[in-house]
Amino acid sequence: MAEALVTPWEVKGTIDYDRLIKEFGLKAFLAQTDPFDKNVLFRRGSVFAHRDFERIIAAVREKKPFVMMTGLMPSGKFHFGHKMVADQIIFYQSLGAKVYLAVADIEAYNTRIADQAALRKTAIEEYLMNYIALGLKPKNCDFYFQSSRSKDGEKASAYYRLASMASRHLTANEVEAIYGDITPGKLSSALIQVSDILHPQLPEFEGPCPVIVPVGADQDPHLRLARDIAARMPQHKFITPSSTYNRFMVGLKGGKMSSSDPLSYIALTDTPEEAKKKIMKYAFSGGRETIEEHRKLGGVPEIDVSYQWLFTQFEEDDKKIKKIYDDYKSGKLLSGELKMILVEKVTTFLEQHQKKREKAKDKVEEFLKA
Amino acid sequence: MAEALVTPWEVKGTIDYDRLIKEFGLKAFLAQTDPFDKNVLFRRGSVFAHRDFERIIAAVREKKPFVMMTGLMPSGKFHFGHKMVADQIIFYQSLGAKVYLAVADIEAYNTRIADQAALRKTAIEEYLMNYIALGLKPKNCDFYFQSSRSKDGEKASAYYRLASMASRHLTANEVEAIYGDITPGKLSSALIQVSDILHPQLPEFEGPCPVIVPVGADQDPHLRLARDIAARMPQHKFITPSSTYNRFMVGLKGGKMSSSDPLSYIALTDTPEEAKKKIMKYAFSGGRETIEEHRKLGGVPEIDVSYQWLFTQFEEDDKKIKKIYDDYKSGKLLSGELKMILVEKVTTFLEQHQKKREKAKDKVEEFLKA
Repeated sequence: MAEALVTPWEVKGTIDYDRLIKEFGLKAFLAQTDPFDKNVLFRRGSVFAHRDFERIIAAVREKKPFVMMTGLMPSGKFHFGHKMVADQIIFYQSLGAKVYLAVADIEAYNTRIADQAALRKTAIEEYLMNYIALGLKPKNCDFYFQSSRSKDGEKASAYYRLASMASRHLTANEVEAIYGDITPGKLSSALIQVSDILHPQLPEFEGPCPVIVPVGADQDPHLRLARDIAARMPQHKFITPSSTYNRFMVGLKGGKMSSSDPLSYIALTDTPEEAKKKIMKYAFSGGRETIEEHRKLGGVPEIDVSYQWLFTQFEEDDKKIKKIYDDYKSGKLLSGELKMILVEKVTTFLEQHQKKREKAKDKVEEFLKA
Repeated sequence: MAEALVTPWEVKGTIDYDRLIKEFGLKAFLAQTDPFDKNVLFRRGSVFAHRDFERIIAAVREKKPFVMMTGLMPSGKFHFGHKMVADQIIFYQSLGAKVYLAVADIEAYNTRIADQAALRKTAIEEYLMNYIALGLKPKNCDFYFQSSRSKDGEKASAYYRLASMASRHLTANEVEAIYGDITPGKLSSALIQVSDILHPQLPEFEGPCPVIVPVGADQDPHLRLARDIAARMPQHKFITPSSTYNRFMVGLKGGKMSSSDPLSYIALTDTPEEAKKKIMKYAFSGGRETIEEHRKLGGVPEIDVSYQWLFTQFEEDDKKIKKIYDDYKSGKLLSGELKMILVEKVTTFLEQHQKKREKAKDKVEEFLKA
């Protein structure tokens, strides 16, 4: 097994989440906090760590304005790993958050993909349309591209000048300490991301308020940078942004779910038949070699991908997931039967979702107005 | 005499312009080119070198659209050194150029002055009002602050994303080769300046066209960077920007004219009496110790600051300046008499200018509309 390596630019090998919490100085997530315990992602530890989340809990309870901000890097198909993030976004919107969604197209251009037209198409057709189908509302949602922040020049300038001026408050050594080897392109991207995180608090936007940024653990360097800069620009009276950290969804074959390997994920545009085939054929099983052995020894849900997928997002009923766990562990439930439970959940979801996705097309324009 | 050092960040000592031409690979300026020979700054070599100026001569002759772009760093009083640049800007406007004037307030914040409000006041009251009094017209003039490019969000985004995306096309080594030690703040400033130079050619502004950037020799690194990046972003079809290089105006006491030393310059807001006193008391003289000696040996106009000021901007008549030179050289004209010629020119100018400056106040708003 390769050694775990978590940077903002790539994620390799197997991740030791406890080590991440320790190294980054995060706090382990207290899942059983109302109203967050209502959401399966929080309740079952997919959101595994945080910084200053207390501030968000307080805002929700006191019904005070707050912002949920996150970014997306459009690459490839929108799959169930992306859905975990989308579900959080929509959950925050339901809790009263103003949602800021940044398409990281400047970061993409500077560090990966130069084709801006293709990237825009992917952002809208793969990401935005799925967000809408999953329940994102245009009201209280500011969906934007880093490369074209707003049709209002005052807002656009405020966003970009924050990125440029933040650079005054950084030394080259600090940037290297956070990012390692730094190129001009990476530095520019990092500064734009700092503005993504902090600009909701500018007077041209919401003014100072709590901001929650849910991210993958690999994105923490951007948060640390934004928090440092917030403290160094007292003229803006920024409230230090809060953040939560998601576990990466396990790939179908075990290991990493990767956009570059279609057999590691199920896309929300896969047909139910494709999804069924992928699960039955490729889902890594914690079952035994033979039925006899399985009945005798029981399965190993901890390494079974179908079980993990059911646990993290497809079976939200705590009693039912416990029964699945117990039955699989005891050998009562066979691997094929476990897979069929997942197939049933996934195909039912896909059928309904794809109808909603068709209707979502008409709503795209409403999101692109600002 | 200190060794000459010319960087974009500071100018020290005495400058060897021939060395600059050689080191930077510039072309010595061919002054006697219609219509540029009509302007004393071009005719007398204050504009001493260029890159690709042929393209601008062609545009002027063929009456094709072109842009004159330059930046200003508002610090201290607007003096006759600044007026040399203003006179060029206004001359280009009279030749049909669309004028782009960038207040380098992001650069100022990142490298020098943090007080944005004071900087804005200086930019408007010291710079813009003097430009207007000197003849700058609001038509065909885009005067802007780097920190708030436009009230039109499409234009603002186009300007800033060019700065961010230009970074993809640079390596850290190249930036160091051009600027030496590079901090995040300096890199951000350099990228914004690249956009200042190139963005007039974006579709949201004028589209591809010749652009002339008149600068001090110390600003050439920004031009080299912009030219390199123009070539590396073929998607924009940028025409390589042209540039000309100004000599620094000699300070009243000889040596450098410096905003931090009020006795080294005359400000356009100095009273005629102050100006007279400064010239009579401080202007470095090329005259001899005694009148007798002066009559016998003659003065040295080459080192006489009053003569140099008359030559570079206050006596535009070629016959008259030649007579002054000859009379001073022969000893016929005494230092005090030479100073009085300059005093007469300067005080007459200041009296008229300060009346125009009062009227300019009403026109400021027209320039800040975009």
